[in-house]
Amino acid sequence: MGIIGTSIKPFTATAFQAGKDFFDVTDEDVKGKWAVFFFYPADFTFVCPTELEDLGEKYAMLQDMDVEVYAVSTDTHFSHKAWHDTSDKIAKLNFPFLGDQNHVLARNFDVLREGVGLADRATFVVDPDGVIQIMEQTCEGVGRNANELTRKIKAAQYVRANPGQVCPAAWEEGSETLAPSLDLVGKI
Amino acid sequence: MGIIGTSIKPFTATAFQAGKDFFDVTDEDVKGKWAVFFFYPADFTFVCPTELEDLGEKYAMLQDMDVEVYAVSTDTHFSHKAWHDTSDKIAKLNFPFLGDQNHVLARNFDVLREGVGLADRATFVVDPDGVIQIMEQTCEGVGRNANELTRKIKAAQYVRANPGQVCPAAWEEGSETLAPSLDLVGKI
Amino acid sequence: MGIIGTSIKPFTATAFQAGKDFFDVTDEDVKGKWAVFFFYPADFTFVCPTELEDLGEKYAMLQDMDVEVYAVSTDTHFSHKAWHDTSDKIAKLNFPFLGDQNHVLARNFDVLREGVGLADRATFVVDPDGVIQIMEQTCEGVGRNANELTRKIKAAQYVRANPGQVCPAAWEEGSETLAPSLDLVGKI
Amino acid sequence: MGIIGTSIKPFTATAFQAGKDFFDVTDEDVKGKWAVFFFYPADFTFVCPTELEDLGEKYAMLQDMDVEVYAVSTDTHFSHKAWHDTSDKIAKLNFPFLGDQNHVLARNFDVLREGVGLADRATFVVDPDGVIQIMEQTCEGVGRNANELTRKIKAAQYVRANPGQVCPAAWEEGSETLAPSLDLVGKI
Amino acid sequence: MGIIGTSIKPFTATAFQAGKDFFDVTDEDVKGKWAVFFFYPADFTFVCPTELEDLGEKYAMLQDMDVEVYAVSTDTHFSHKAWHDTSDKIAKLNFPFLGDQNHVLARNFDVLREGVGLADRATFVVDPDGVIQIMEQTCEGVGRNANELTRKIKAAQYVRANPGQVCPAAWEEGSETLAPSLDLVGKI
Amino acid sequence: MGIIGTSIKPFTATAFQAGKDFFDVTDEDVKGKWAVFFFYPADFTFVCPTELEDLGEKYAMLQDMDVEVYAVSTDTHFSHKAWHDTSDKIAKLNFPFLGDQNHVLARNFDVLREGVGLADRATFVVDPDGVIQIMEQTCEGVGRNANELTRKIKAAQYVRANPGQVCPAAWEEGSETLAPSLDLVGKI
Amino acid sequence: MGIIGTSIKPFTATAFQAGKDFFDVTDEDVKGKWAVFFFYPADFTFVCPTELEDLGEKYAMLQDMDVEVYAVSTDTHFSHKAWHDTSDKIAKLNFPFLGDQNHVLARNFDVLREGVGLADRATFVVDPDGVIQIMEQTCEGVGRNANELTRKIKAAQYVRANPGQVCPAAWEEGSETLAPSLDLVGKI
Amino acid sequence: MGIIGTSIKPFTATAFQAGKDFFDVTDEDVKGKWAVFFFYPADFTFVCPTELEDLGEKYAMLQDMDVEVYAVSTDTHFSHKAWHDTSDKIAKLNFPFLGDQNHVLARNFDVLREGVGLADRATFVVDPDGVIQIMEQTCEGVGRNANELTRKIKAAQYVRANPGQVCPAAWEEGSETLAPSLDLVGKI
Amino acid sequence: MGIIGTSIKPFTATAFQAGKDFFDVTDEDVKGKWAVFFFYPADFTFVCPTELEDLGEKYAMLQDMDVEVYAVSTDTHFSHKAWHDTSDKIAKLNFPFLGDQNHVLARNFDVLREGVGLADRATFVVDPDGVIQIMEQTCEGVGRNANELTRKIKAAQYVRANPGQVCPAAWEEGSETLAPSLDLVGKI
Amino acid sequence: MGIIGTSIKPFTATAFQAGKDFFDVTDEDVKGKWAVFFFYPADFTFVCPTELEDLGEKYAMLQDMDVEVYAVSTDTHFSHKAWHDTSDKIAKLNFPFLGDQNHVLARNFDVLREGVGLADRATFVVDPDGVIQIMEQTCEGVGRNANELTRKIKAAQYVRANPGQVCPAAWEEGSETLAPSLDLVGKI
Repeated sequence: MGIIGTSIKPFTATAFQAGKDFFDVTDEDVKGKWAVFFFYPADFTFVCPTELEDLGEKYAMLQDMDVEVYAVSTDTHFSHKAWHDTSDKIAKLNFPFLGDQNHVLARNFDVLREGVGLADRATFVVDPDGVIQIMEQTCEGVGRNANELTRKIKAAQYVRANPGQVCPAAWEEGSETLAPSLDLVGKI
Repeated sequence: MGIIGTSIKPFTATAFQAGKDFFDVTDEDVKGKWAVFFFYPADFTFVCPTELEDLGEKYAMLQDMDVEVYAVSTDTHFSHKAWHDTSDKIAKLNFPFLGDQNHVLARNFDVLREGVGLADRATFVVDPDGVIQIMEQTCEGVGRNANELTRKIKAAQYVRANPGQVCPAAWEEGSETLAPSLDLVGKI
Repeated sequence: MGIIGTSIKPFTATAFQAGKDFFDVTDEDVKGKWAVFFFYPADFTFVCPTELEDLGEKYAMLQDMDVEVYAVSTDTHFSHKAWHDTSDKIAKLNFPFLGDQNHVLARNFDVLREGVGLADRATFVVDPDGVIQIMEQTCEGVGRNANELTRKIKAAQYVRANPGQVCPAAWEEGSETLAPSLDLVGKI
Repeated sequence: MGIIGTSIKPFTATAFQAGKDFFDVTDEDVKGKWAVFFFYPADFTFVCPTELEDLGEKYAMLQDMDVEVYAVSTDTHFSHKAWHDTSDKIAKLNFPFLGDQNHVLARNFDVLREGVGLADRATFVVDPDGVIQIMEQTCEGVGRNANELTRKIKAAQYVRANPGQVCPAAWEEGSETLAPSLDLVGKI
Repeated sequence: MGIIGTSIKPFTATAFQAGKDFFDVTDEDVKGKWAVFFFYPADFTFVCPTELEDLGEKYAMLQDMDVEVYAVSTDTHFSHKAWHDTSDKIAKLNFPFLGDQNHVLARNFDVLREGVGLADRATFVVDPDGVIQIMEQTCEGVGRNANELTRKIKAAQYVRANPGQVCPAAWEEGSETLAPSLDLVGKI
Repeated sequence: MGIIGTSIKPFTATAFQAGKDFFDVTDEDVKGKWAVFFFYPADFTFVCPTELEDLGEKYAMLQDMDVEVYAVSTDTHFSHKAWHDTSDKIAKLNFPFLGDQNHVLARNFDVLREGVGLADRATFVVDPDGVIQIMEQTCEGVGRNANELTRKIKAAQYVRANPGQVCPAAWEEGSETLAPSLDLVGKI
Repeated sequence: MGIIGTSIKPFTATAFQAGKDFFDVTDEDVKGKWAVFFFYPADFTFVCPTELEDLGEKYAMLQDMDVEVYAVSTDTHFSHKAWHDTSDKIAKLNFPFLGDQNHVLARNFDVLREGVGLADRATFVVDPDGVIQIMEQTCEGVGRNANELTRKIKAAQYVRANPGQVCPAAWEEGSETLAPSLDLVGKI
Repeated sequence: MGIIGTSIKPFTATAFQAGKDFFDVTDEDVKGKWAVFFFYPADFTFVCPTELEDLGEKYAMLQDMDVEVYAVSTDTHFSHKAWHDTSDKIAKLNFPFLGDQNHVLARNFDVLREGVGLADRATFVVDPDGVIQIMEQTCEGVGRNANELTRKIKAAQYVRANPGQVCPAAWEEGSETLAPSLDLVGKI
Repeated sequence: MGIIGTSIKPFTATAFQAGKDFFDVTDEDVKGKWAVFFFYPADFTFVCPTELEDLGEKYAMLQDMDVEVYAVSTDTHFSHKAWHDTSDKIAKLNFPFLGDQNHVLARNFDVLREGVGLADRATFVVDPDGVIQIMEQTCEGVGRNANELTRKIKAAQYVRANPGQVCPAAWEEGSETLAPSLDLVGKI
Repeated sequence: MGIIGTSIKPFTATAFQAGKDFFDVTDEDVKGKWAVFFFYPADFTFVCPTELEDLGEKYAMLQDMDVEVYAVSTDTHFSHKAWHDTSDKIAKLNFPFLGDQNHVLARNFDVLREGVGLADRATFVVDPDGVIQIMEQTCEGVGRNANELTRKIKAAQYVRANPGQVCPAAWEEGSETLAPSLDLVGKI
């Protein structure tokens, strides 16, 4: 069975976030607001910082939308801090980075490349009940798109807030939605 | 381990495509060009036709890019034909629809909602070697975006054609790419 | 052991019935009156509608006999509705159609063609206690006969109502029945 | 999976047939022509002889249709002969009776009432390749109908002889049949 | 371990006895008096009636000795009655015939010819506690001897009634018996 | 399955026979002529010597009939010799006594009283092919009858020599036998 | 783990002892005084009686020492009695002989020659708590020595009575013993 | 099954023998002559040296009899040498001491006190084929007797050299032996 | 998982310590103060005494530091005492020697050379909670260094006493330590 | 069994070494010279750099001794390079750092803290045959000592080069060694 609609599994990870002491994050901490788990292979590598930078530009807006962002790699929180201290691009990012050197999160979300010890390039959107609603994963070398991610989170939030409505393809905030009813079956 | 980087599994499905007799499609038929597997829950339902219509508008371009599109649900090919015959939106679509009433494709791509008998709303991009390179999945009610799908396929095609290059976040065709090297480690 | 004399197994299916909202039917709902489970391979196909039409002509009489009729295929309730909306023959049918896209009913009655995902052409008569009393199954291409089905249900109802009586071959309502006794052993 | 479409399993049984010495019948002997396996609970009982008599009236016609009939119960061939010698009704029957006192045939066709040692009241039609095409089974007390059985065998023979044709519901020899084609999908 | 000295196992069988309605006999019914279980292969066969006739001549005496006789084959009680009604030899027999078409008794006493479905020609004497005291079994074609059976039952009854006494070889009622004692060890 | 019709199992036992050195007997030695295995519980006990004496009186005749007799208990061949040397009755016996102190023969014929270590009082007649044709077993205290045993061996020899003939109950040498045929079914 | 220091296992055996009725002996009966279990292969054989005679000469002394002696073979108590009655040597022995024809004792003490059914020539000394303290076993043909057995029992009794004392090699009653102490370590 | 009559199991142990370098002894080295394995709990303890001394006095004679002696404890060969160097009693012993600190020999002969790591006080006599012929074992505190051991080895050698002869109880070299024959059965 | 950070497992061993009676030491006795388990292969060997002597020179200091020292080999406590009594070097050592002839300690600390029965040359430092904090192991022939061991114990004690401090490489008592803090990450 | 004396297990790891491109190191590459595997928990942390610096000062000497040094943590080679680029202390180190983010090396040497994903502070010395000869492991917070490590490697090299010699405790290069011989047993 696919991962959509399942609850996130238990984890404890140490986080680095600019301007704070190291702190632990658990699956319980995540619940109560929306969350993005943004996996990338390794600190100090190439595509990742552009993706993280792209996501960083949306961070303020996502926080306004009640969405927390967690960047995750199999590096330690020490490594995350060191990257932050030495990379101009990373230094500007304010969301927490989780140290997953024990591979628990990568295994929980089934994105660990076994035998390699690195996570795939994968994004998961989790609702305030801890249920995974959206996922996306790409091969090595293909960067993600924070605009599209934001669009999908807005749609998911709309659907949660408006039971009985669905968002059509490429829906943007403010566009029309649809209310399914028996009469529409076979009519669209 | 995640599905990215794995080969598609064996299947045989009967396809309906406008203007053709029913015909069978297998995993072997898929190889040799790029392919999109576009799963949706059921014929005659609500969000799906808008997503399929959105994808239909890109079909000509995707074919030019050497990409075939397969729409897949757990309905039969009879049902696919009936939908095509009765829905204006579906009538305009020219790509093949696969009948997966035996659940083989939905299980192969791990998107069957067990106990429900419907597929999740999921998209897979498969390269000409039959290897899955991109995937995306959303909860019920959130429509997909054919524009973004096309962008990612272009990036994946670029990376395949240009070994040693990677595409940064939100990369659009014609933009700059990056060539990873030792000197870049920790420098971006 | 054969299926005759066994109880129907648990299931929940969504039904389409002309003039009603979609509704769920369970094994518990079935009990308390006689029921016919009428399996057919797929919506929008050839022999099936003539069989369903043939059965439809008996539906009023069967209801007077306290018999409910359930048509079942591995299509969804959406597909059943679409078929009803587009086929003149199906449009006239008033009994409920169960959506068995999760294959639960076809497996419960052991009529799923594994690897194919379609049900065989099979009929089951269930008494008010949920016990299967009569079954019939034919290969692809051979249509059933509602007259004969009705005859057999009447005989089964007669036997249930008159313990100690049995109905001879090709018995029709009103004909003579037999009361087995020791003296008849070896005498017929 | 249902029994329709499966091959008959190996067996050897001793047969009694009026006017012959006892002889053995195997699954191999059955092949090459059509066959009816007509199970009934026990020699010397009540409904059975009326059903057997009803079938006996069709035996000449069935032989003309290249159909052999095998009556089967868990009695011995000795008992079958004794019944024939003492019952006027049975004395008139010319088809072979198989002795299934070792329960092999009843188990092969899955109609043995375990713990009881008697077969259910069940009929199977087997084609010349040894594949089961039609089955029917009723509870204790409900007699079968040889007319309907003959109708269905004719339909099955017609379908076998005319690939691409199907017989609609309650089809009688000489009536119209249907040739499925893509254009008919959703049109009936 | 041999069967001698073991208790009879649970069973329920329907009996035919001349002049009575069919009735059930269980292992519990058997207890309280002596019982002979007299297995034979099949009704309507050759050696059996001579054996049964031979036993029938002793039935009055055995009843006086508080011994019930049960004839058992894998035929049904219907068949037993039919045999009784049509055979002069069997018609004279007054003891009950048990229908063992479910093979329970033949398996309980380990005399079922597996794959054949017939019982061996075997006799068991059971004491009033349900414990098997004497058994005898012969190949096809060799008839038993009711005289010798009666002699052995008398000896068994004598031993039960006179603890501490044993009957020497070929002992006949009224002959001398032996009382084992330490002094006799090695002295006979 | 009963023991009648099965082959004797492998064994090697040391035999004592009056006037000979100890010698070994195996299952292979037994074949080629008829054999009686005459089990008894223990040397130096009460009923046994009378049974053995009774059998001894028939030994010359049995040898003329090509039948060897083996007395068997779980005593050693040493014990058998000692019994022979000290008991007048045993001293007269000329057939071999097998030492079964390892319980192999008693287990092979399924007559070992487990936990007790003694054989039941049981007789087996084995034909020249090593197949068991007749068996008999009695409880402690009831002596066997060599006359009856001889009668049954003669019948078994007759049936073996005259295929197609069966011996009726209590048949004695020279009496009439029966030839089963279809016409006799249900006629005796 | 060796058998020394383990408790004897449960058993029940029937004993023959000169001048008494047969009686049962159990593991519980053995406790409370010292016991010798003296296994030998078979009654009526060669070395055994000389060993038993040798042991018999010590029996009075052993009884004075509160030691019971049990001779054990896989023969029955009947055989033991017969041996006693016919052998001058055995007739003089007053200790009980246990019948181990069910092999329980020989298995408990692990001296059964599997496949042979005879016990090895083995001796066990059991203390009043049922714990085995001394054992000895020899091959076929080598006789034991009751003098040495008695010497060892005396030593074991001395050690039990005088905790903290040990008996040196070949110690005889009345000789010096040793009291182990730390100072003696490495000093002898 | 007891250990008598079984072959010694594979082992390799390092030996200390006065006047030699350490050397290895294996099960293969042992064969070809008689061997005594003389287990004792530990170097530097109390009873053991008296037993070893007692055995030492017989060593010259045993060697003349073609018998090698191996003293064995779970101490190392280093410890054996140290004991030899520091104990007057041990210093006089010329036979090899095997270091069994890996418990292989103690387990092979089943004399390891599990959880304690010491061997029981046990003696085994092995013939030139590596087959164990005699064993003896005593509880803690009871010394063995080299005289008796020598007597038994002589008897075993005599029996091996003189097939068909057995040594009576307490036999001493030069005494009479017995030749078992049929006539002696039950006569001693 | 490595052994560092795990608790010592249960054991009971008999100890020899100069000037005391033998006494038992258990895992519970060890707790409450620091402990060194100093494994060596065997008493009376070469490198070991120099290592033990080296450690002995630190024993007074270690006791002042609240550290107990346990020397352990698979020899018995008898052997330990004998070594102490005969070796000048060992005679000077005052710490307890544990007899591990049952291999429990060597297995608990995973240093038993299986098949050899000797411990590796390994040292473990256990804190007062019974948790292993330091370990070291060397091949045969390489001696350890008590100076370095002492240095490491002091560092471990310092860290336990001063939470939040760590000792840099080759730290000696009185040298500077480090207090890790977020600011130091990536700064050293 | 302890790890000393075992061969290193297969691995492939990507190495960072100052002044070189990233390169792979396998277990096969390691053989042929001596190797030190120097595990530490994480890049960018506190004690580790002092330990690594301490070891770095010995690197030239170790290379002269034909010893390669591998620093190993569960960080990636990217992280190792970044640490090198940003830390003055690490910048001076010339030996290779292995990236063990897949935990293979940490598991091979049994030093992974399961659930934590970091290696213990452990050192292994491997000889040119790939066999582990020396190991050392300390708790968090206690630094290692490169001087002592070097001393032990020299001793191990000496022993390998001089079979039959052993190095006493705290041996330094040039000091006396010992040649074990039988005469020394128990004499040191």
